[in-house]
Amino acid sequence: MAQAPTREDKFSFGLWTVGWQANDMFGPASRGPLDPVEAVHRLSDLGAWGITFHDDDLVPFGSADAERARHLKRFQGALDETGLVVPMVTTNLFSHPVFKDGGLTSNDRDVRRYALRKVLRNLDLAAELGASTFVLWGGREGSETDAAKDVRAAMDRYREGIDFLAQYVIDQGYGLRLALEPKPNEPRGDILLPTVGHALAFISTLDNHEIVGVNPEVGHEQMAGLNIVHGIGQALWQGKLFHIDLNGQRGPRFDQDLVFGHGDVLSSFFLVDLLEHGGYDGPRHFDYKPLRTENMDGVWASAEANMASYLLFAERSRAFRADPDVRAALDAALVPELATPTLGEGETAADLLADRSAFEDFDPDKAAERGYGFIRLSQLALEHLTGGR
Amino acid sequence: MAQAPTREDKFSFGLWTVGWQANDMFGPASRGPLDPVEAVHRLSDLGAWGITFHDDDLVPFGSADAERARHLKRFQGALDETGLVVPMVTTNLFSHPVFKDGGLTSNDRDVRRYALRKVLRNLDLAAELGASTFVLWGGREGSETDAAKDVRAAMDRYREGIDFLAQYVIDQGYGLRLALEPKPNEPRGDILLPTVGHALAFISTLDNHEIVGVNPEVGHEQMAGLNIVHGIGQALWQGKLFHIDLNGQRGPRFDQDLVFGHGDVLSSFFLVDLLEHGGYDGPRHFDYKPLRTENMDGVWASAEANMASYLLFAERSRAFRADPDVRAALDAALVPELATPTLGEGETAADLLADRSAFEDFDPDKAAERGYGFIRLSQLALEHLTGGR
Amino acid sequence: MAQAPTREDKFSFGLWTVGWQANDMFGPASRGPLDPVEAVHRLSDLGAWGITFHDDDLVPFGSADAERARHLKRFQGALDETGLVVPMVTTNLFSHPVFKDGGLTSNDRDVRRYALRKVLRNLDLAAELGASTFVLWGGREGSETDAAKDVRAAMDRYREGIDFLAQYVIDQGYGLRLALEPKPNEPRGDILLPTVGHALAFISTLDNHEIVGVNPEVGHEQMAGLNIVHGIGQALWQGKLFHIDLNGQRGPRFDQDLVFGHGDVLSSFFLVDLLEHGGYDGPRHFDYKPLRTENMDGVWASAEANMASYLLFAERSRAFRADPDVRAALDAALVPELATPTLGEGETAADLLADRSAFEDFDPDKAAERGYGFIRLSQLALEHLTGGR
Amino acid sequence: MAQAPTREDKFSFGLWTVGWQANDMFGPASRGPLDPVEAVHRLSDLGAWGITFHDDDLVPFGSADAERARHLKRFQGALDETGLVVPMVTTNLFSHPVFKDGGLTSNDRDVRRYALRKVLRNLDLAAELGASTFVLWGGREGSETDAAKDVRAAMDRYREGIDFLAQYVIDQGYGLRLALEPKPNEPRGDILLPTVGHALAFISTLDNHEIVGVNPEVGHEQMAGLNIVHGIGQALWQGKLFHIDLNGQRGPRFDQDLVFGHGDVLSSFFLVDLLEHGGYDGPRHFDYKPLRTENMDGVWASAEANMASYLLFAERSRAFRADPDVRAALDAALVPELATPTLGEGETAADLLADRSAFEDFDPDKAAERGYGFIRLSQLALEHLTGGR
Repeated sequence: MAQAPTREDKFSFGLWTVGWQANDMFGPASRGPLDPVEAVHRLSDLGAWGITFHDDDLVPFGSADAERARHLKRFQGALDETGLVVPMVTTNLFSHPVFKDGGLTSNDRDVRRYALRKVLRNLDLAAELGASTFVLWGGREGSETDAAKDVRAAMDRYREGIDFLAQYVIDQGYGLRLALEPKPNEPRGDILLPTVGHALAFISTLDNHEIVGVNPEVGHEQMAGLNIVHGIGQALWQGKLFHIDLNGQRGPRFDQDLVFGHGDVLSSFFLVDLLEHGGYDGPRHFDYKPLRTENMDGVWASAEANMASYLLFAERSRAFRADPDVRAALDAALVPELATPTLGEGETAADLLADRSAFEDFDPDKAAERGYGFIRLSQLALEHLTGGR
Repeated sequence: MAQAPTREDKFSFGLWTVGWQANDMFGPASRGPLDPVEAVHRLSDLGAWGITFHDDDLVPFGSADAERARHLKRFQGALDETGLVVPMVTTNLFSHPVFKDGGLTSNDRDVRRYALRKVLRNLDLAAELGASTFVLWGGREGSETDAAKDVRAAMDRYREGIDFLAQYVIDQGYGLRLALEPKPNEPRGDILLPTVGHALAFISTLDNHEIVGVNPEVGHEQMAGLNIVHGIGQALWQGKLFHIDLNGQRGPRFDQDLVFGHGDVLSSFFLVDLLEHGGYDGPRHFDYKPLRTENMDGVWASAEANMASYLLFAERSRAFRADPDVRAALDAALVPELATPTLGEGETAADLLADRSAFEDFDPDKAAERGYGFIRLSQLALEHLTGGR
Repeated sequence: MAQAPTREDKFSFGLWTVGWQANDMFGPASRGPLDPVEAVHRLSDLGAWGITFHDDDLVPFGSADAERARHLKRFQGALDETGLVVPMVTTNLFSHPVFKDGGLTSNDRDVRRYALRKVLRNLDLAAELGASTFVLWGGREGSETDAAKDVRAAMDRYREGIDFLAQYVIDQGYGLRLALEPKPNEPRGDILLPTVGHALAFISTLDNHEIVGVNPEVGHEQMAGLNIVHGIGQALWQGKLFHIDLNGQRGPRFDQDLVFGHGDVLSSFFLVDLLEHGGYDGPRHFDYKPLRTENMDGVWASAEANMASYLLFAERSRAFRADPDVRAALDAALVPELATPTLGEGETAADLLADRSAFEDFDPDKAAERGYGFIRLSQLALEHLTGGR
Repeated sequence: MAQAPTREDKFSFGLWTVGWQANDMFGPASRGPLDPVEAVHRLSDLGAWGITFHDDDLVPFGSADAERARHLKRFQGALDETGLVVPMVTTNLFSHPVFKDGGLTSNDRDVRRYALRKVLRNLDLAAELGASTFVLWGGREGSETDAAKDVRAAMDRYREGIDFLAQYVIDQGYGLRLALEPKPNEPRGDILLPTVGHALAFISTLDNHEIVGVNPEVGHEQMAGLNIVHGIGQALWQGKLFHIDLNGQRGPRFDQDLVFGHGDVLSSFFLVDLLEHGGYDGPRHFDYKPLRTENMDGVWASAEANMASYLLFAERSRAFRADPDVRAALDAALVPELATPTLGEGETAADLLADRSAFEDFDPDKAAERGYGFIRLSQLALEHLTGGR
């Protein structure tokens, strides 16, 4: 069994995860409400490091100011007692029916203005609670028919909104960074910025692009059949992996939000390998839903399971990297050689054209005979993952 | 029936489309080879405007220089006779087994250098033939196991390669623009730059990003279950739709390359609507495969079908936009209102916070009562598409 | 525009469709409750023929007998006033949390017994209201981990349950037929009997298989990327298409329940063609969800849209079949020849082995030269569908 | 590391797997041809038990009788030397272009007759080589447009063909059983009998259904997003799992044919658990494609990897089942209780209706409070799978 989680592991949970009452499209809640204060204590006991929330998770939508203050005070108290931190806060622009056509890109300008105001208020709260990341999931920004949404106008409004919010953060000196969370569909038929790639591309157009990055969710990318390790790799490479949502999903279907590791095991293993050895030092945040079949005991078991899976994969990853057979197989597959630039230092097109070994004297048929040994590498990974080595 | 295609419609075809001999994973060719010269004449007769090719389509891989010149001369002669143009040339870094682990991101540095040389040679040819766009599809740039490819190193090499090629184009004064073609998978398990979004994000990191854009293929985005109209909309919005590959696909499965319009009809309709009214004036390029069940008569019928479908959708799109009922429904759905900025001119956060109508006096429950009428819009589109209005 | 619907068209709607209040996984209701009596009147006015319901739609779960009787009386009154019929009743074994691990295949035997009792009660009601079909959708019969469900034991219990219910129907002389509704996933990770095929296979093992068939839902098959026309064709061929749920879906993703025709248009067209000309004379039942963006006006517009789409496709299908060009293309493609048995009457293996024209004198290379003209057929269909002919 | 494979493990390989030359849709072969005799010797050395083939793998299509005899004699010699068996033979009705619209369901009757003759000849060979299973994969039986194939006529012809072939087997006393192999698509747009369910349903309509079963391929079911363990479970439950093709696939996309275990690891684990403990005693047959990046060393490594993965999963499965914590968790989740019939022995509807504990005195709200502990079970499985316990 893997070791127990510690604060150093930087595990965090959304309040809405352990607190999900398990109402779904086909049935009402199967569990009662969870007091945020209890959530803080239980997660702390299990070894978590942080807790996160949407504005509406912590303070019911439309609460009066006094009630809001009371909620926040109790919550802050629990944080103080346990030492749990709030590394991230996120905004809910998707539950209330006023956002049924989106928040920042609703066709209705009044809704868009209201959405901005709601987020501003939440940014203040995030700063107050010491969060360093503010996540925006645009779950209702999208359409079911292309007749209903002018995509280019929507992108204009999205940019306007994010730039405005980022500017506010800068002007207030909040030190927050914004992280956009992509998703291809559900609840909208098609959601704008459907993948990590689309979000990164959008961010490159922002005035305030420096403080805007992504918060990829494992299952969201897998709903589009995409390789999460490739996506996270590109985000890291672009310096934009500001936060990550870990969970499980079994391919293109509804958003399952399984426990991390209970979906695609190979990808989970390689993702942990990348996070642990790829220079990411942000939170390991679990955004999942305990199955509707579980009672509260099962909820806490599921919280533990997320952390245990992560630690197990991390352990297997260390052994994989340390194994001399693996190193030899990586060398044989020329994996390290990809770090060598294709061109020599300062080499120009003229230089390359003059290098006969690169073309005229290069025998492609002979070079093609090389076997890369990728299957052997893949098998070594499987054997390490399964503890078979 | 829709009108016949003319040169003004800017329809172009890949030589490899009508020339595909219908060998697939499970069987050999069912058709003989097609002489490129015949392809030029037949496509011209059918009303096409342009023809495109991979280096290896026109000149067999490894041809000696004299043979190469002979092939090119005959081809140029056919172009001259018919007036067909070569708006785009593309490169084949995926067929020869030397590229089995990719071209620009192969783990093998020698292969990467050879790939650059092959593309340089092809860029010269593209310029010579007057092409304005040069497409790069990285079909073998990817992996089947995450152990075999360091994604960040691969991105470094990809950037190095594309920037190098772009610089060559600039230095030679070729006036070409490069267009990257994304695809999620097949033939590799996972391909780097899997979607329009990932490609746009990558491009934003290039030194020579100004002359690099995308060449989305309808079916490639649909293989990831993504909305092609959203993807093309974002590419247009970012000023990066340099070229487009039109075809048909029926969702996440193997790359079908059906005739345009023979896959997702609604998306095809809205895509044509976007291309015709969204400021795109590049080629309407068909990249499809005539079914293996067809003989050459069927091949030419399929070429006609692509153009006829496009023109039919264009006609339906014009009627849709001209219909007063549609305009009224768009207004009712507030579609035009999305073009209005969310903020007033010069409005600051302080201004917005001072606007009580935006929050304190805004009644979200009441605002939520609005019905957007999106289903009515969707039905109007369907009725126009089906000629039912 | 297509003609208005009439009772002869046999259009029916689930009470839960127009009555859906648009609460989803990410937000609460955006519409108020709909009185079943109003639903009857409005649907009747729009030209529908029938209305259907789950027990819990009409009578809130757990109602006392007197209250139940009152609900039923009001509803029956509305039926009498309008002439609307109740061709089908279905059962809800998925909403109440007691069914969170399924009804007929719950691991908990007490739940299974309770489920049977709930269905028996509902069968009585179905018979009382004159329904001829009773649908069972086993939405919670399934699992998220293979460790939690012994599939073979579950199949035993499923068979036991369905056979028991069918026997009750027979013994009571209710004249009802049971129709199983397959779905691959959602709300469970994987649902038992995931496709039309699996359900038909299961039915073949029943003692009372004669009165058990399927109720395929268009979108459910499309969630698995399957061709709905093939699936319905096989169900019809096996004499088991007892009922059908029409709606729209855009491939493998969450269960969208779009308006019929607002998903895969080509499949919708060919499905209507099959239903209209394939000997199916049961209800054309719409099982969809009006988008959450709509108010009640939009709900009624969506009900109209379903029927209008169906009638439009039916009209296009008639024209397609009547077109001499289509008939010629079908002949050229040998489509009618598939109705001719492969073997001559009474032909034995010995006879076939003696027929040299079938093998020794058959030239496969020459026979392979035939072009089937399938693309031309496909294009003719598209042109009819789009009113382009 | 898992133990080495032995003949008792009943591992078999298709000749076309290790012999695949790695030509695909986008490039020619990257490996040379493999002599079947060498394949027999190498597989035997690696610990395999059986080898299988399509007629055309062993004897080139169209070989004259003498050449055919020569091929067979050499092959038989290798079998004799090594002791390898031929447990299964399969037929190729998909490669030659004459089958481009299918074999048994081609629109062209002459092709259908030729197909039957080709299979008869192959059945003789299968019997001669002592095979007990004859697999039919109808890879070209399907369509790309619903206009081109009358599904019900196709089903008639399919039934006619399979019944005819089965009758021949019976009449000849060959002792063979036929196994149909489902696949949803590729190379055809949609293939008839797309899943295990559809094939089982079809088989139930056959006159000779007793000797016809299924040969599911792991990846084929996963291409439709279906749970392979559920599918195999249903096939076993119906007594129809005659053979199985093991490999790996990463969800809905092209047919990847990865090494077993290199796709969905959790499903592979539970599938081995089911095969090992579910009463299946047929061959463990690998139907995969060694990656195009590999040379022959990689091919043999891939053959080993398939067997090693299977044995590793089998070992993990034994430990999982033996663990007292797992047994306790299974009990807590009521998994064994599903084996108890829902009804008492001889219990009738009247009896059930009289049992107040089943309904009147049953409190669903209270019963719903049970937590099934499925997440704990899932985590225990993951920990066993990964050697973490």
